Amino acid sequence: MDLFGLPVRWPIVGAPMAGGPSTPALTASVSRAGGLGFLAGGYLSAAALEQEISAVRALGATGFGVNLFVPGNAEIDEVALETYVASLRPEAERFGVDVAPSWDDDHFSEKLELLMRSPVPVVSFTFGCPSSEVVARLHDIGTRVVITVTTPTEASVASTVGADALCAQGIEAGGHQGSFADDAAPDSGWGLLALVTAILHEEQVPVIAAGGVMTGAAVAAVVRAGAVAAQLGTALLRCPESGASEMHKDALADPRFTSTSITRAFSGRRARGLVNAFMRAHPDAPSAYPHINNATRALRQAAVARRDPDATNLWAGQAFRLAQARPAAAIIATIGAEFEASHPWPRNL
Amino acid sequence: MDLFGLPVRWPIVGAPMAGGPSTPALTASVSRAGGLGFLAGGYLSAAALEQEISAVRALGATGFGVNLFVPGNAEIDEVALETYVASLRPEAERFGVDVAPSWDDDHFSEKLELLMRSPVPVVSFTFGCPSSEVVARLHDIGTRVVITVTTPTEASVASTVGADALCAQGIEAGGHQGSFADDAAPDSGWGLLALVTAILHEEQVPVIAAGGVMTGAAVAAVVRAGAVAAQLGTALLRCPESGASEMHKDALADPRFTSTSITRAFSGRRARGLVNAFMRAHPDAPSAYPHINNATRALRQAAVARRDPDATNLWAGQAFRLAQARPAAAIIATIGAEFEASHPWPRNL
Repeated sequence: MDLFGLPVRWPIVGAPMAGGPSTPALTASVSRAGGLGFLAGGYLSAAALEQEISAVRALGATGFGVNLFVPGNAEIDEVALETYVASLRPEAERFGVDVAPSWDDDHFSEKLELLMRSPVPVVSFTFGCPSSEVVARLHDIGTRVVITVTTPTEASVASTVGADALCAQGIEAGGHQGSFADDAAPDSGWGLLALVTAILHEEQVPVIAAGGVMTGAAVAAVVRAGAVAAQLGTALLRCPESGASEMHKDALADPRFTSTSITRAFSGRRARGLVNAFMRAHPDAPSAYPHINNATRALRQAAVARRDPDATNLWAGQAFRLAQARPAAAIIATIGAEFEASHPWPRNL
Repeated sequence: MDLFGLPVRWPIVGAPMAGGPSTPALTASVSRAGGLGFLAGGYLSAAALEQEISAVRALGATGFGVNLFVPGNAEIDEVALETYVASLRPEAERFGVDVAPSWDDDHFSEKLELLMRSPVPVVSFTFGCPSSEVVARLHDIGTRVVITVTTPTEASVASTVGADALCAQGIEAGGHQGSFADDAAPDSGWGLLALVTAILHEEQVPVIAAGGVMTGAAVAAVVRAGAVAAQLGTALLRCPESGASEMHKDALADPRFTSTSITRAFSGRRARGLVNAFMRAHPDAPSAYPHINNATRALRQAAVARRDPDATNLWAGQAFRLAQARPAAAIIATIGAEFEASHPWPRNL
């Protein structure tokens, strides 16, 4: 079979996990093992992204994608932001760092121009809907476009601008919810299977299903639901090619961490991670991304340096306990084999 | 194939929808159409449940189940309850009704004794875990036991008391979350596919998957994920056999209602319904079930009588827009045919 004209052995996409986990080695391993790997362009400069793309190619992978974060609206509740940042200062002082919120556009334009000059097969977008002009420019150079959505309404908008596929992300997913605007009310987010069902009821566009998929049986499930592929992130987070910190990898297998929740505490945007002391201490962070993400960066880095898993984000999807510390190629091969052998029916009960 | 030794044509369970929707006609129609119908024992007296069981049998169905609500802990935050009930008084006065909170045990013991005297093939439990003694008594008379769970932890407990199967309910589900205790933090609830994956990773017990399943493709999806069957509620809510109010049925198809959310506003327990004015006006209802459910009953009944969909609960699963106003047998037949023909693989993108 193929995805976007790229030969794949299984309908498995390696999720772009920004901030470290999705290294060139992980991306290349997923693609070479029979899936479709993604680099995470978020948080990188254009130059750094260019180096990562070259590194993936040097590792022998040609079919892969790059994910970009679409810059958000700079209009936020400044008073709520300042109140929240002030609440972080004692923790920051304990680590000897500063907390200073700031907005940035994540070098979006520079990275987009890089991908126009040096095309990759697939570009996916998160945190917003690119304009139809951006989509058309990418199409003109032969790049296929994926847009991350979390609701049927976003799916409708993304279809309108010409997306070749949607990445439908359920609330099960680890890390940030890729919503266009960070305005979802608590408990209003969509579960993956209902989201795929509702989108395919309305739209004539291929859907990649993301969120909580950890096994070949779950890959088979979303394919049966009508998705063209499943996107796996947390399933790959503990593998040696993952650039997640050892502390983060260990926490995913640590019985002390028993559950996940969605929080704005670390970044000012809804994201799912292991419930830890920092998350419990800051239940009411306002919507202010990337302001809070920038404010907490030094604090989070200091926590990682000191191996304090209670003071930083430990992104994880809901079924994180199934993440394995095995090479990415072995994980993909196992999940692929499970997919092919997935549960027969009928079963008697 | 069979479920619990009962012949079924498809792995489809008709959800027990308490408070009216699951009439004997709906239950019998689902079972006679090739699924497994359930009566909703919740809110009924033992005498009323006995009549409903007789009515299902009179309609020619022998294979069906009965659901019971397990009584909860009477210990709640009395101050928070009183504050909340006071906030409802203006609305209640507008409708000319009273709001008086009270606890009850939903006639649990009487209904359990009825089901010991007059056995049905399957009994499922919601809102708590029955004791191993209760499970053993039902087993002794040949009744199979299903326990509703919403987390892997609840699944572990339910397995321990001897459940024959678990009904794994994701946050996509319409109506009440069947959690053992109503203590889930916002945004911590499990999506269905990840929940099924996580439970089957830990437990050796058959799982029925509930929440947002509206199509044969979604039934096939949960079966591929390892479930023995899918439980459908909202998919049947608009059919003529459903006892939901016409107002409720109409609201499910009304473009004015665009989304669902989980709320404690109507009952004091987390439940998913269409977002309406009442839900928006009462975002902070405390956990106090059945106290708040009893307090709002007259108000909700008055709203239905006046056809005011903004003043009562309109339970709905996330993919409610796919609910069809067709006879239950036709819906089951369509979903069953879709299930058998569900999406082939590989597909090229």
